[in-house]
Amino acid sequence: MESKQRYEMLLNNMNQYNSGNRGITRVAYTNEEQAGTHAFMRFCKSENLDIRLDPCGNLIARREGKNNTLPPVVMGSHLDTVYQGGKYDGIVGVTAGLEVIKRLNDKGIETDHPIEVISFACEESSRFGVSTVGSKAMAGLIDKEKYRNLKDRDGITMEKAFALCALDFNSIDEANRANEGFKAYFELHVEQGPVLINNNNKIGIVTGIAAPVRLLLKIFGVASHSGTTPMNMRKDALLGASEIALELEKAAKLEQAHGTVGTIGVLDIPTGAMNVVPGEVELKIDIRSTSTDSRERVLKHIYETISSVKEKRQLEIDYKVISLEEPVLLSSELIEGIRNICESKELSYEVMQSGAGHDAMNMTRLGPTGLIFVPSVDGLSHHPDEYTDLDDIMIGIDVLEEVVIQFAKAVEITK
Amino acid sequence: MESKQRYEMLLNNMNQYNSGNRGITRVAYTNEEQAGTHAFMRFCKSENLDIRLDPCGNLIARREGKNNTLPPVVMGSHLDTVYQGGKYDGIVGVTAGLEVIKRLNDKGIETDHPIEVISFACEESSRFGVSTVGSKAMAGLIDKEKYRNLKDRDGITMEKAFALCALDFNSIDEANRANEGFKAYFELHVEQGPVLINNNNKIGIVTGIAAPVRLLLKIFGVASHSGTTPMNMRKDALLGASEIALELEKAAKLEQAHGTVGTIGVLDIPTGAMNVVPGEVELKIDIRSTSTDSRERVLKHIYETISSVKEKRQLEIDYKVISLEEPVLLSSELIEGIRNICESKELSYEVMQSGAGHDAMNMTRLGPTGLIFVPSVDGLSHHPDEYTDLDDIMIGIDVLEEVVIQFAKAVEITK
Repeated sequence: MESKQRYEMLLNNMNQYNSGNRGITRVAYTNEEQAGTHAFMRFCKSENLDIRLDPCGNLIARREGKNNTLPPVVMGSHLDTVYQGGKYDGIVGVTAGLEVIKRLNDKGIETDHPIEVISFACEESSRFGVSTVGSKAMAGLIDKEKYRNLKDRDGITMEKAFALCALDFNSIDEANRANEGFKAYFELHVEQGPVLINNNNKIGIVTGIAAPVRLLLKIFGVASHSGTTPMNMRKDALLGASEIALELEKAAKLEQAHGTVGTIGVLDIPTGAMNVVPGEVELKIDIRSTSTDSRERVLKHIYETISSVKEKRQLEIDYKVISLEEPVLLSSELIEGIRNICESKELSYEVMQSGAGHDAMNMTRLGPTGLIFVPSVDGLSHHPDEYTDLDDIMIGIDVLEEVVIQFAKAVEITK
Repeated sequence: MESKQRYEMLLNNMNQYNSGNRGITRVAYTNEEQAGTHAFMRFCKSENLDIRLDPCGNLIARREGKNNTLPPVVMGSHLDTVYQGGKYDGIVGVTAGLEVIKRLNDKGIETDHPIEVISFACEESSRFGVSTVGSKAMAGLIDKEKYRNLKDRDGITMEKAFALCALDFNSIDEANRANEGFKAYFELHVEQGPVLINNNNKIGIVTGIAAPVRLLLKIFGVASHSGTTPMNMRKDALLGASEIALELEKAAKLEQAHGTVGTIGVLDIPTGAMNVVPGEVELKIDIRSTSTDSRERVLKHIYETISSVKEKRQLEIDYKVISLEEPVLLSSELIEGIRNICESKELSYEVMQSGAGHDAMNMTRLGPTGLIFVPSVDGLSHHPDEYTDLDDIMIGIDVLEEVVIQFAKAVEITK
């Protein structure tokens, strides 16, 4: 069977594991996600891979190399989705790994290094508010006691969710492979942004993963009657928020050369009413960059804006840094490797950064890490209409296959 | 008993009719509002007033004049409150009317014109989304079939609420007194704004009641990942909303001389998330002025801003005018009457407009109408902490008494 047709069947097959009727909902540690993971396990078995499920729920499928004492070359991503997500985010990388294995098997290619396909558990933060749980566990980055009692929207703790999947939360540390080391880790993922599509490029070679600094702001003015409070006697919290929003945009645009972005995605007037001047606004700011310096400049401008808005509008503004992560730079050796393959295949590509987090972030702790993007139509992400052309995925799989063969040191044998 | 002490007892007594434990909740056509109205009826009876409850639930208490064919001089306001409102809004005007009657009775003053105290039903829009229902009915301004099926937050229709109060909604038209005509209508009310307090004035003489024009805006951009969408590829609906908010403020400030105000009190990002560029924002704009020209200028600036924001940010912006009422100008004869009394009593006063709606708006259909404000501490309104100093209310009652005596043509008689 042709690779494209075979891959499409696998992808469609896997997307049957879904609850709800709008988009794909296959949330971490739920029945549908577990069923999907177990189905994928069976598909891996029929390619003669060794299978194990670690205590965090990560599925590891391994193809032996000629020298199994060598560290593995790993392809990974995740099968879980957000609520009402799409058909491509995460699952493309996992299924692409299996397709690469099928091709190696078909071609009878042996490699010096063993090769692994990993489906990481709980990459999305939708359920418990924390992301990349499986890859964090594998990299030894889990704060077990903090995670144990995190609750989902139905009040189920992470520990309980593990138990419902027959996983023992207390053994989560055993997922740690930090002492093992990988030869290389590759992740193929949809871009989740509009850059490749807009520039008409097929492959994105990621140099770094931006990490967010996130602020929670509470702006307090004075709620008063919208009809009876003269404009010059108001303390309108929403107008303060509006100024901050526009200044954030301005500051981030000045840093565009560094790919820095700043967003207010959540804004709420808790007791908003048509005839009341807003007395309180809550909002969240998300600033990302692969350059900490650039991110700091935007943050500094926001702090200055907060001060000036406070003073000018006589508002109280409380803020709290709710997340501050370090950006991750990816391996230049792997970037070069991927770039050479694109050049030799005459593929249109661009070197770019990732604004979204990925399991690859944590895998940098285990070895040289590479991240390959394929185009997202309209840049849509975490959305039922998320779409990536099958031909574009196949191009990504071609690149993934080449780079795995290269790093795992393939030796073609006669069947 | 001293008038102040007597009045304070009446006010406290009436504020016992309350449900809930935060502020005062005495919402239209509820048990507590009905109980309050019936209690007030008894207090009026003991002052020998003739009582009737009209089919809309308006309580009319009448003191005969020497010539009962003459049109009445009326004092009115309302006993209903918003949810979790304060102890002064509405109730001050009704109880002040009764206190004036008590003083006339004490002093043995007879008047040529009959005098009425009216407690209007359902002045607040909190329950059914429509305000000044009782005074509208009295002025013949009710669209019966539209109002009949309006529902409260529990799904109870206005018709059903009437029935629960033993009122027949079908007879609501009989509340219409438009053909009768009043000699004069006076309403004493707390300012609900900070102007009198800030200027240290005791009495506000209202020249006009501003009417709102209200717009509902839906701004559509494109929801996209906050980490992966470069600043120059975004269509952020919240940034469009922020610009509109700041332009509204700017335009209204330019019209400050006309007392014009503009407010965005409600703004929502329906699917807001920390890591999503807002793809949709809904907001409501409220613009008020007693000058339609001034209001039109602000509105025109908002329409221009909508056009320019649409174009600049490539957003779709739908808007709908959800309310467009005409400002009401009050009687200059009554304004002069009240002003003369303030002058002769050496009270600090100011001539001002009302940004909030009042039953007085509808009473302009029945005769010359005057509206008198007393100070609201901090301008707080529709809030449990709403406060007006008792001494300030007593000053308001003194003015109300004088002006009623003047317009009802009092004749002092020997007891």
